[in-house]
Amino acid sequence: MLTPATTDTLADLRAALPADTFRDDTAPYLTEPRGRWAGSGIVVAPRTTDQVAQIVRYCHERRIAVVPYGGGTGLVGGQLMGQGDVPLVLSLERMTAIRATYPSESVLVAEAGAILADVQKAAEDIGRMFPLSLASEGSARIGGLLSTNAGGVNVLRYGNARAQCLGLEVVRPDGSIWNGLSRLRKDNTGYDLRDLMIGAEGTLGIITAAALRLVPQPAAVGAAMLAVPSPAAALDLLALAQSRLGDGISAFEMIHRQGLDFLDEVGPAFKAPFAAHPEWMVLIDIGMPAGLAPDAALETLFEVAAEAGLVTDGVIARSGADRDALWHIRESIPEANRRIGSISSHDISLPLSLVPDFIVEGGKRLAQVGHFRINCFGHLGDGNLHYNVFPLLGEARSDHEDKRAAVKDCVHDLTHEMGGSVSAEHGVGRLKVGDLEKYGDPAKLAMMRAIKLALDPHGIMNPGAVLRTLTDD
Amino acid sequence: MLTPATTDTLADLRAALPADTFRDDTAPYLTEPRGRWAGSGIVVAPRTTDQVAQIVRYCHERRIAVVPYGGGTGLVGGQLMGQGDVPLVLSLERMTAIRATYPSESVLVAEAGAILADVQKAAEDIGRMFPLSLASEGSARIGGLLSTNAGGVNVLRYGNARAQCLGLEVVRPDGSIWNGLSRLRKDNTGYDLRDLMIGAEGTLGIITAAALRLVPQPAAVGAAMLAVPSPAAALDLLALAQSRLGDGISAFEMIHRQGLDFLDEVGPAFKAPFAAHPEWMVLIDIGMPAGLAPDAALETLFEVAAEAGLVTDGVIARSGADRDALWHIRESIPEANRRIGSISSHDISLPLSLVPDFIVEGGKRLAQVGHFRINCFGHLGDGNLHYNVFPLLGEARSDHEDKRAAVKDCVHDLTHEMGGSVSAEHGVGRLKVGDLEKYGDPAKLAMMRAIKLALDPHGIMNPGAVLRTLTDD
Repeated sequence: MLTPATTDTLADLRAALPADTFRDDTAPYLTEPRGRWAGSGIVVAPRTTDQVAQIVRYCHERRIAVVPYGGGTGLVGGQLMGQGDVPLVLSLERMTAIRATYPSESVLVAEAGAILADVQKAAEDIGRMFPLSLASEGSARIGGLLSTNAGGVNVLRYGNARAQCLGLEVVRPDGSIWNGLSRLRKDNTGYDLRDLMIGAEGTLGIITAAALRLVPQPAAVGAAMLAVPSPAAALDLLALAQSRLGDGISAFEMIHRQGLDFLDEVGPAFKAPFAAHPEWMVLIDIGMPAGLAPDAALETLFEVAAEAGLVTDGVIARSGADRDALWHIRESIPEANRRIGSISSHDISLPLSLVPDFIVEGGKRLAQVGHFRINCFGHLGDGNLHYNVFPLLGEARSDHEDKRAAVKDCVHDLTHEMGGSVSAEHGVGRLKVGDLEKYGDPAKLAMMRAIKLALDPHGIMNPGAVLRTLTDD
Repeated sequence: MLTPATTDTLADLRAALPADTFRDDTAPYLTEPRGRWAGSGIVVAPRTTDQVAQIVRYCHERRIAVVPYGGGTGLVGGQLMGQGDVPLVLSLERMTAIRATYPSESVLVAEAGAILADVQKAAEDIGRMFPLSLASEGSARIGGLLSTNAGGVNVLRYGNARAQCLGLEVVRPDGSIWNGLSRLRKDNTGYDLRDLMIGAEGTLGIITAAALRLVPQPAAVGAAMLAVPSPAAALDLLALAQSRLGDGISAFEMIHRQGLDFLDEVGPAFKAPFAAHPEWMVLIDIGMPAGLAPDAALETLFEVAAEAGLVTDGVIARSGADRDALWHIRESIPEANRRIGSISSHDISLPLSLVPDFIVEGGKRLAQVGHFRINCFGHLGDGNLHYNVFPLLGEARSDHEDKRAAVKDCVHDLTHEMGGSVSAEHGVGRLKVGDLEKYGDPAKLAMMRAIKLALDPHGIMNPGAVLRTLTDD
């Protein structure tokens, strides 16, 4: 049974912690990025791991809920308690230090509040690359990115957030500190608690710092936008590209004509890559070792692929500016989607070989729910589609409010039937708790509940995220 | 409180399961590979996941210990209960099927008993590569390799066993089955139980099958043996190689003159790469994309490195036979070590930049314990050293039996002081439970114990491995 945070809580904490720990303007912390709901809470922003521990210990003793808060960019409500007892929102925004860099180890240690773009910059400064890259990198923070196991555009080559982490410092739900900031590449001494904390969305403890692995900067990079006859051809193209260029392929993004049509309709402005928008395109990005010119490698790939009937047209970047222009298209699509206004958006993944079937079958099933425009795009190399459903031209999303649940169920049911996931990279948060219960393996759910209870017996850590709160059971 | 397995147990199980489930010759299952101790147990080898579940459920109800058994190649006693109540040893040797291959997804699903070499072959058969590679690949089984998060020579490029796994099928300690055989590259629905099971050494459940990710076969491969002036130069060479060839470097193995001297002394026979054995050598292995010749890339690397004073001599493989000959040297060193007979062997890892200091300081401290020969070699790219201590020429390991504990403590204490791990890739098993208690972070140990209790409340799964049994507490 939890206790709400009150003015007494605030008074206690004010007496124990520096004045600048507290945030009086709580509104920015209590609003969901898409404006779907609002939360409540007392907001604190400690400066050190010890202060985090002190606050959590206080809450543990009094059974007050703690909601860890990173950059606030999460799309599934993991950072926001919309209901239940008033929590303490613990923002990591003042713990932004890059504590250390180890160039010869290709490692840096960042505090949880470090913004992704700043971590990328710190890696560049020592001649390395931090490969995690995603739309919100200017505001998303390392703690949140790890807690949600964020994905992005470079997962194909470098893996998701999990793969970038060597060690963690974590404040446990009882306020004790796990000093797990290992810089080791290999360590088989005991259970893999690092990966358990990563992706736990703040429900098992608060990540306060991380040792991150960096990668070599590719000697040269390149990109091409290729028109493909179908999603199946896109997959064959991926296999062909991998057989030629190995893991030099950093990103393999599929784009549908609908995305370019939306850009034409509402912007942002872009330079059309082809005279007419093809039905399907692939944006391929590569990083090559010294001695191999990326544009030449892409040209040969294009020729071989064209001969095999896998591509019908192509634009190969001849400069950094060309490459940026191609990426600008891909990166503008989410903004165009927002301007159009989706009825329902889905972050799904599928076994790679089933992606083409999913697209056909999904279109058929949705046609039985209503008439929509579908913008299906995303990280094809990872089997991760952003499958978003929009009203027809001239209609508004509000015209379809009644169909929203049916659209979501239609897409999620099919995803589940085909062995896919209804949250590929965004996490569960509070938005998809029901989905997890509906589609999740019962044995897995039972283990998750047992672990939550074992590590957070009072259930104070981010209650209601990932798992329904125990008192709701 | 556990109950020993008895003739009644055997009678019960014989009545419920096919006759060929049972193994009357139990000796091979109850002997430690290095002959250090013997175990006891009834041995069963079920053929299906349902049979595994049935057996575990039976043991769960009666509180009988279950020891999962893979290829029996583990070096830390994880597969063998030397003391305590007689357990049921559950061998996965008859669950060897490759259940399915998915060439267009670069995925295959193997049962836990599949031998690593057979999985490598199945991947090759569909034009892919399963990159896990280690000395015991002809007998080690997938279930054991995952349960111990095995390493090997390709970790630098491809990661350890953990990184090769997309999904698991697991029989839980109560006999229920977690169907987690996902082929997805991205799935953020809930806690990462896959990675928790991987490396848990059979203490949280039994892995019965795994979905494994395959990688593209490199278009061309190459290797070189380079003489380096020091371990510090070897690390600089690694950084240089990575800046030029990126993640094309598959292996970066350090070899000390002592290893070649041992080969001269006791065999196996080998072709000396250099006129005189250099003090330190590096074996570098690369896989390159199409269009880049590995030997030319290595030649350029050698020239640049020589100019920077990082290498003093080198042999570049000009053929597959050349490459095999270089690898033969590396792979013969453990056998030579065995023939010499070590006083104490250590599988440690260190923060990469501290490896040179460790080697200097380790030598100094050991000299205070006694006079030894040290063969320090291993996966430098991962910071993983096999730091093995031998008697002087003309002495025997038995002459130093009394110093063995002191040698081990000396090496492990220094490793721990420098932020390293006393088990980089072999696991904890039963041999290093004390080390984990001595060196492990208390918060981590508390979490591990809580998780063990939550997932295996009767403590039947591989009791005494990783964590001391609860009844011993």
